[in-house]
Parts: sequence; C-alpha cells; structure tokens
Amino acid sequence: MITRMSELFVRTLREDPADAEVPSHRWLVRAGYIRRAAPGIYSWLPLGYKVLRNVERIVREEMDAIGAQEVHLPALLPKEPYEASGRWAEYGANVFRLKDRKDGDYLLGPTHEEMFTLLVKDLYSSYKDLPLSLYQIQTKYRDEARPRAGLLRGREFVMKDSYSFDVDDTGLQKSYDRHRDAYIRIFNRLGFEYVIVHATSGAMGGSASEEFLAVADNGEDTFVASPGGYAANVEAVHVIAPQPLPYDHAPAAHVHDTPDTPTIATLVDHANAQLPRADRPWTAADTLKNVLVMVRQLDGTREPLAIGLPGDREVDLRRLAAQLAPAEAEVFTEDDFVDHPSLAKGYIGPSALGRENSSGIRFLVDPRVVTGTRWVTGADRAGQHVFDLVCGRDFIADGVIDVAEIKEGDPAPDGSGPLRLARGIEMGHIFQLGRKYAEALGLKVLDSRGKLVTVTMGSYGVGVSRAVAAVAEGACDDKGLCWPREIAPYDVQILATGKGDAVLNAATDLARELDAAGVAVLLDDRKASPGVKFADVEIMGMPTSVVVGRGLAEGMVELRDRRSGGSENIPLAEAVARIVAVVHGRPAID
Amino acid sequence: MITRMSELFVRTLREDPADAEVPSHRWLVRAGYIRRAAPGIYSWLPLGYKVLRNVERIVREEMDAIGAQEVHLPALLPKEPYEASGRWAEYGANVFRLKDRKDGDYLLGPTHEEMFTLLVKDLYSSYKDLPLSLYQIQTKYRDEARPRAGLLRGREFVMKDSYSFDVDDTGLQKSYDRHRDAYIRIFNRLGFEYVIVHATSGAMGGSASEEFLAVADNGEDTFVASPGGYAANVEAVHVIAPQPLPYDHAPAAHVHDTPDTPTIATLVDHANAQLPRADRPWTAADTLKNVLVMVRQLDGTREPLAIGLPGDREVDLRRLAAQLAPAEAEVFTEDDFVDHPSLAKGYIGPSALGRENSSGIRFLVDPRVVTGTRWVTGADRAGQHVFDLVCGRDFIADGVIDVAEIKEGDPAPDGSGPLRLARGIEMGHIFQLGRKYAEALGLKVLDSRGKLVTVTMGSYGVGVSRAVAAVAEGACDDKGLCWPREIAPYDVQILATGKGDAVLNAATDLARELDAAGVAVLLDDRKASPGVKFADVEIMGMPTSVVVGRGLAEGMVELRDRRSGGSENIPLAEAVARIVAVVHGRPAID
Repeated sequence: MITRMSELFVRTLREDPADAEVPSHRWLVRAGYIRRAAPGIYSWLPLGYKVLRNVERIVREEMDAIGAQEVHLPALLPKEPYEASGRWAEYGANVFRLKDRKDGDYLLGPTHEEMFTLLVKDLYSSYKDLPLSLYQIQTKYRDEARPRAGLLRGREFVMKDSYSFDVDDTGLQKSYDRHRDAYIRIFNRLGFEYVIVHATSGAMGGSASEEFLAVADNGEDTFVASPGGYAANVEAVHVIAPQPLPYDHAPAAHVHDTPDTPTIATLVDHANAQLPRADRPWTAADTLKNVLVMVRQLDGTREPLAIGLPGDREVDLRRLAAQLAPAEAEVFTEDDFVDHPSLAKGYIGPSALGRENSSGIRFLVDPRVVTGTRWVTGADRAGQHVFDLVCGRDFIADGVIDVAEIKEGDPAPDGSGPLRLARGIEMGHIFQLGRKYAEALGLKVLDSRGKLVTVTMGSYGVGVSRAVAAVAEGACDDKGLCWPREIAPYDVQILATGKGDAVLNAATDLARELDAAGVAVLLDDRKASPGVKFADVEIMGMPTSVVVGRGLAEGMVELRDRRSGGSENIPLAEAVARIVAVVHGRPAID
Repeated sequence: MITRMSELFVRTLREDPADAEVPSHRWLVRAGYIRRAAPGIYSWLPLGYKVLRNVERIVREEMDAIGAQEVHLPALLPKEPYEASGRWAEYGANVFRLKDRKDGDYLLGPTHEEMFTLLVKDLYSSYKDLPLSLYQIQTKYRDEARPRAGLLRGREFVMKDSYSFDVDDTGLQKSYDRHRDAYIRIFNRLGFEYVIVHATSGAMGGSASEEFLAVADNGEDTFVASPGGYAANVEAVHVIAPQPLPYDHAPAAHVHDTPDTPTIATLVDHANAQLPRADRPWTAADTLKNVLVMVRQLDGTREPLAIGLPGDREVDLRRLAAQLAPAEAEVFTEDDFVDHPSLAKGYIGPSALGRENSSGIRFLVDPRVVTGTRWVTGADRAGQHVFDLVCGRDFIADGVIDVAEIKEGDPAPDGSGPLRLARGIEMGHIFQLGRKYAEALGLKVLDSRGKLVTVTMGSYGVGVSRAVAAVAEGACDDKGLCWPREIAPYDVQILATGKGDAVLNAATDLARELDAAGVAVLLDDRKASPGVKFADVEIMGMPTSVVVGRGLAEGMVELRDRRSGGSENIPLAEAVARIVAVVHGRPAID
C-alpha cells in the first residue's frame, strides 16, 4: 500500500520546538514523528510509530533467536510484591503510585523483577523447568524529577525487559552471556555507535552488570575507556588504592595561620607565597578537602557525612548518588553548620571529623588517602590550616568512599592505560541479579538431588522508545533526520516536483511498481512547491528518495541518498530495478 | 522456529480456578494462556500473547485497509483535556486517577477522544486536510466496580480505538460506514457469531451509535432482535407510545380498602377476589406500579424520582442507568421515606407524586402510560388502592421515562415483529460523536469558503483483549479451547506418544518439515504419558494435531481436527502435504 503525503497525518515544522534541548528531540518533533502530550510523555504520530515498531521488531527477532519467550505483564501493579522486595520504599518519588476505588495501593511498573519472579514461582517447581528466559516489550513508567530531551528521558516509555531463571551460577552466567550476545546483535542492527561498559547495579541489586551506551555528546551518562579495553560507567569505576607509604621520617604536623583561605585555590596560593616547599610548588593535590553532605535515608532520617578527598578533585554527584542509593545526598545547610559548632566552615579538618572526634560526624575518605600520605588541610579553626598531617598517624577515617570525579588521563583500574572520558546514552543494561528477588519472594525449585534451592536470576533491559531517539541522535544532520534503512518508516520517498499530470502520473506509477516489488513507499503527491518537498524529504529522513520532475521529459529521474547526500540521474525505465537493489543493500548512490 | 513443549513456559491445570465464572476464563487460565495478577488485571503467557497479537494483526490489517493511520498515544494523561470535555467529573470512580511528584493531576486513559481532538487541532487547520481517520491499539484502564469473567471485564485491557474527523455530517456518515464495514470484516475474521445492534451513546455523547455484540449466554449485555431485522441493545430500545384513548365514558376513580396488598401480586389477587371485573380477570398489567429511587448527580446532590410503570414490568436497572447517566440511581431508603411522610409505602399513587403534589417528587411514567389509560394504583393511604384512575384526567406526570424491562415478544419499535431477547458481549462500539469534543476543545478548520467550522467526529472501539476471551467463549467445549485457525497460537500441535527415539525423531523431523513449509508448529516432546499429552492438546486448542506414536511402525500418523473431533490415519510420507493443505484452508478431516 502506497502512503501519500497528501493524506499522511504529518506536519513538518520550520521552527525548533521551544523545549528541545538535543537534536533528536528537535528533529523528531519538527519532522512530525512525535508530539508532546505532557512533560516526559509523548504521542507517536504515524511516522514515529513505524520507527518504534521497527525497533520493536529487531528486538523481538533477536530475543526470539536466543530462545527467550515473549509474554506481556500488566503495567498497573499491586503494591504487595514490591513491598516484599523492598522496592516500594526504595523507589521513593520515582514511581507513580495510585489507589483504586477500594483504596488498594498500586503502582505503574518501572520494571518487573517482582512480577516475573512470582509468575515463574506460580508455574514452575523443578530444576528440569530451567533455564528459562522470558521477555516483554511493554510500556513502563517512571516519575522522573527532570524529564528531558524528548524520548531520551521520558516518564512513559517502551522497554524490552527480560528475565532469566537458572538453578545455579553457571547457568546464570550462560543466560547472561546469551543476552549480551543478543544485545550486541540488536545494537549492531540499530546502527549506532555504542560501547559496553561496566556498570553499577544500583537499586536493582545483584552483582555483575554492564551497560550498552550509545556514544553521544548529549548523553546523560559519562563513561571511561582505556586503550587496553577497560570501559565503565564513571559510577562503576573503582579507584585502586595506592600502597601505604612509610612515614617514619615525616615531620610532626604543624599548624599555620592561613587567613582568608576558605577555598583550595586560595589555600594553595597562600602556601606557595608564605610557606613554599623546597622541591616543588604546592598544588591542590597536596590538600585534603573535606566535603560535608547530609544523607537522607528512605525513612526520612538525615545524618551528616564528611568526605575527605584530594583537593584537586570534586565529589562526582552521580558517583556519590550511586554509592549512597537508595539513600540520597542533600546539601549541608547553614542550619546544619549551626547544629555542629565544632565545624569551622572553610577550615574543616580531620581532627573534628569522625565518630570519635568532636563533631561525631562519620568521616569517609577517598581511596587515595592511604596510610602515610601527608596533607595540608583545615585545622578546625577559622583562618588556620595544618600541614604534614599524616594519614594513619594523625588521623584515621571511619572508612573509604569512592566518589571523587574521574579525570581524563586517570589510570584504568586494571592497569590498561590512561582513561579517556566520553558521554553516552544508556540503551541497554544487563544484570546478574542473583537471588535477591527469588529470596524475597520465595522462588525455589527442587534440584537434581531433590533439595529445594533458590533460583538465580538475571534481568536485561533495552530502551525501545529511547532507541528511536538514540538512533536519531546519531544519525541526523543540520537538515534533519537520516534513518538507517532497517528502521526507517519508509524505504523510499518519491517526490513529484513539477506541474501537470504527467509528473504525478509517472511518480504514482513508479510508486505502484515499487510497492508491488515489496518496497515501502511514501509518495509526495502534494500540491506544494518543489522547495517545500525538498526541505521535507531532508527533515523526514528516508534513506532513499527519488525526484520525478524536470528530467522526466528526457525519461530521467533523480535518485538521492539521504546519508551521503549523493545523487544520480537515472533512466525512469531502470528506476525500479535500481531502487530495489539499493533497498536490498547493494551499493547506494555515491 | 519450532516451539517445544518441553521448553514452552506453560502449565495446564487440572482444576478450575476458584474465581472463574465463565468458560473462556476457566479455559484460558487452565490452558496456560493467562494468569491473574490483581483483580481484573492479567498477565499474558506465551500462548495467550500469541493469540492477542493475532487479534491485533487482524484489527490492524482491516484498519489499514480503510486508510486509517496508526498512531500511539500515552496511557498516562493530564487532567486538563478531560476537564475541558467534562469527563474528568463524569467518569467518577470509574477512572484511575493519580498525582505526579509535582502534585499534577493525571488519569489512566479509558478512551482518548480528548487527546485525539487536541492532536488533530495541533496539526491540522483546513478542510483540505480532512477526512482523517486515526487509530491506535493500546492498553487502557477502567477502575471497574466489579471486574469479572477474566478478560471480559478487566481493569487493564487492550483496545483498538479510532477517531474520524470530517468537515461535515455527510463526511462523518461516510467515515462511520467505512468503520462499520471494517468491523464486519474484523469480526468475520475473528470467527464468532455476532450481531450489530442499535446502542446508546452514554457518557460518550453524540447521536448514532451501534454495538457489535458477540452472541454469548454469559454476555453482560442483553439485546433484542425482531424477525424483520430490528436489533438493539435493550438500553437503546425506545418503546413506542400507544395512541391516547378516549375516556369520556370512564367511571370516576374509586378508592377501595385493599388491606395487606403491598405488592402487585397481592393486589391483583385481592382485586380478583373482592372486586372482580366482568370482562376478564385483573392482571398485573392493569396496575400502575410507582417505583422510587434516589438520583445522585455528579456533584453529589441527591434528588428523589418516582417512576410509574405498568405493574407487569420491572424497572430495568441498566436501562435506567443509561437514561440517568452520568447521574446514578441509588436505593430509596427507609430514611428517605421518613423524609417524605406523604408517601404511604406499598400504597404510593400518582396523587402524592409529581412536582405539584404533596410529596413534590418528580414523577415520570413509562411511555405506555398515555392519556386515557385507566389504572389500579396506590391511594396514598396504607391499605387502600384507587381504581379507574385515568391518566390525563386524574393525574398528569412530569414527563416520560423509558426504563421498563423489555420482554420476550414485545413488539419491535419499528413494527418489524415480536422481539426475541438474547445476551451478548460488547466487542465493538461505533459512535457518531458529532461536535461535542471538537467544540469543547476548539477543533475548527477553515472550510472551502474560508469560514471556520467545527469538525465533526466519530469514535470507534474494538475490545482487543476482550476479543481473545470472546472467541474462546464461543469456541470452547467441555475439553478445552478450540481456536479458529487465524488466531490460534500454532497451526499444528505434534504429539510424540510412545517411547524410544524413533517416535521422537519422526515427530521432530515432521515438525522441521512443517516449519520449513511455513506452518507454525508446537511439538510436544515431553517425557510425559500419552494421556497427559492427549488431555493437554484438547485443553490448549490448536486447530490441528498430529499424533506420532503407535502407527509409526506401519508408517502411519494420526491427523486430528480439534473442532470436529474427527481423526484420520494417514501415511507419514503424505503428512506434510496434507497438513499444509489443511492449514491453507482446504477441507479438514471429517
């Protein structure tokens, strides 16, 4: 069936939407693929929905290929299973909650570990039933604090989520590997650049976990990669603690007046001016910065936390959030300082910190702060700092916290070279959950010796609607969208440019012949100027277009390739064969 | 790809689920197609989801065929559009409502008239853009007071909803007719018995509306049909008022003591014993029954209503609900009687009823209560009734209300003969909405003369998940499900019955060959007894099955047809050709 632009429910926009922060959002709206219905909630127009379904098809084919079985669970879910797993509380404000007419508590499912666990418990009871992988492609909900970037971070979105069930860890590893391979095939077919990185498990729980990130300057995630092949989300980087240093010959700590040095920069300047060291200038890396935050637990209780880290690094708030989750970090306010009079703001040092010291505040330090390291740090009196304060001699922290920012050039934890930083969009996440949910919900099977064992699970997600945006993000230019062939809404857009029936008739005949040959055709049959049609075909981004217009008198049409921008005049008589060849993957126009 | 029962995520149950009220629910659960997740909320297992997707495919193909364009709108919707149309209030407790983290009001969409109206308003502005038909296949929500019968009345369900947009009424009629034709094709393909009946528009608004009902003894809807082709949901039957009668020679009304006659039956018995009429016995049809209800408006205000109807008929509560909507009828309680002392319970008559009379209660009568009709009815004093009370002479009602039950044999309103009553399941509903939503939300376009005109709309629904149950309901027997070929999860189920590799190998080879020939095969390769496999194949309901077992030694297999119960032994060598022929619709086994 040929689609005619004169009938297609679409309007391209000449202006960027006001709220568009990223190219994919801008172009998907301007090209008439999606429309905003509410913050973080979008309607799919005909072109957009075709792309979404193409992505779904790819995901479905690859999941079926590894023997995962498709099911479909509700989005409206009762509270009880999520209460049993603890996630009803853990999700906090991130989940949409509601009550039914009988005052029963429900949520809109953000992910379905609990429901799948219960479903398998309901049906299966023996190791002979396993391994099992189930998946669904389903609408999910998350009440994001800051929905943004169109489909990239929405509140209603489509995900493929799958779950594996195995009787032992070896089985789980195999299920995980099968999913990983399927994801590689999915993302290869979607055709964007991606990396697979180590990731944190976060609220999901479990041990091993990897993310598939689409490489994109606008991505929300930052990842690191080394020449030797190490790759991780910054949240998952574990800094390797250096060896302890000997400090037998270290001088005793000595306090100096350092007036007006509340920041690291002013402190370093002051030290270099007033207390220069012989071997080299002081740098921020010589200082120990003590950062205070309030940690709010799920039950609402707040407790202060002091983080000591080298002064040349900031606390990375996302790394901190990942470490604290499900608790959250909040700002340590002026009121909080009032409540802790032993803290000298701007001059806080280890002497006041720690469970055993004057403030009683829990004090955790960066892994680099090992025994024997010497620091310039606050002396806990306004206008004074202490020098040569030795870790392990002059102070002992309550523990270690690995939340300092990762910098370009930092060594990879596995010794594989200096890290490079880049940004990406989380497109897939695979988890070895282990037994967390099976234990909470009682999913056990009889093993081969007749003993009840708890099932071990994996959970695997692909952002299906997000993938539409991620592909668009990686494949648009300054003129519009530019779809890879496998997920484009149509293979070919035919433009009838020029007046008179001859042009429209020839274009329509060509469309019919291509349609009969199995090519998905969008025919621009509108009574619009060639300029409008040329602009729209660029915005809308079909991989191939054919211009039926001026050349028709000579029996020629123009074949265009959206990605390369190349074009070629070919005889109309050869057009069907040529286009069919192009659509089926033979060399395009250069 | 062959599916193996040894791996398929399914368990058939030997017992009926406790909450199963209807066969479709019982068998869909027992055969492992669906599982209950919460009241009125179901999970689709692999077999069930295949059926659901087959129904979706049929619906999609037929909607595409009439040029409707597929879109996909959110399920989580902001309050504002529904407030503008008045439905935020009208839906009452039937809609799931929730707040987001910013205290914004949302609902889970039960139907999307408002959102589609806004979407078209957003993109279109000229009569040249119309006609337009859009549709979606989407998960919808309704907080039913009594979810029941499995998928037949759920709280989360899949619907196809479409919406037509036209510049004038002629256009709307065409769009409506096109949808009607598409629905006929859809329901023919789904293969159940259905009727098309006149229907009420209810809260949806608009004028013409028809329902497609699957004929089913367990259906919630009652419809009527006449030999002459009239068909309507009972809610939509309009009783034709008879001609007024002359009453010049009617005797004056006369009151009699009728002790202990609070019911129609006791009254008729008393009248025949004590006050016999000459021509024939008194019947309930001679009495005027006055029924009191309280009407609760959306704003919570309650007002009494008296309904006068012939004593041989009850008030049909669904017809009453349809007439009152969005207001609701509630019981007239003892307390309400206390508040209205002029009402003599059991002996209420028109003298006390009506705005102008002692109770001041609004008094509406059945259309049959026309001027000149004479009634035996309450005299508004305990133990007394009045005879020969003439409508139009002795009392005048405040209006007419058409809510009496329809009885088998009642005349069709169009004179096409006596009505037959039957029950059905609402599978589709088509509405000529007119301009209700376009007016409320400001959807106007420029007409051909450059004048702004309000668009006229239609709305059209198919219960997609409900169709799975409706098909099952119409096509199961006492052994299990029995799918029509077009929506069966698999074409053929192959049973390997018998020990030894030879049987399993032959069955697997047959499965492979059929799979290669494009037949969807489920291979029962389990280490289970033939009895278990025979029972499961009946429960699960694939249209065709093949038994590879005892006959194999002679090179024979058994071909079975689920619907007819017929079976035939055929040579294994001919099995592929035979089964391919059966699957492609050539005569099955008899």
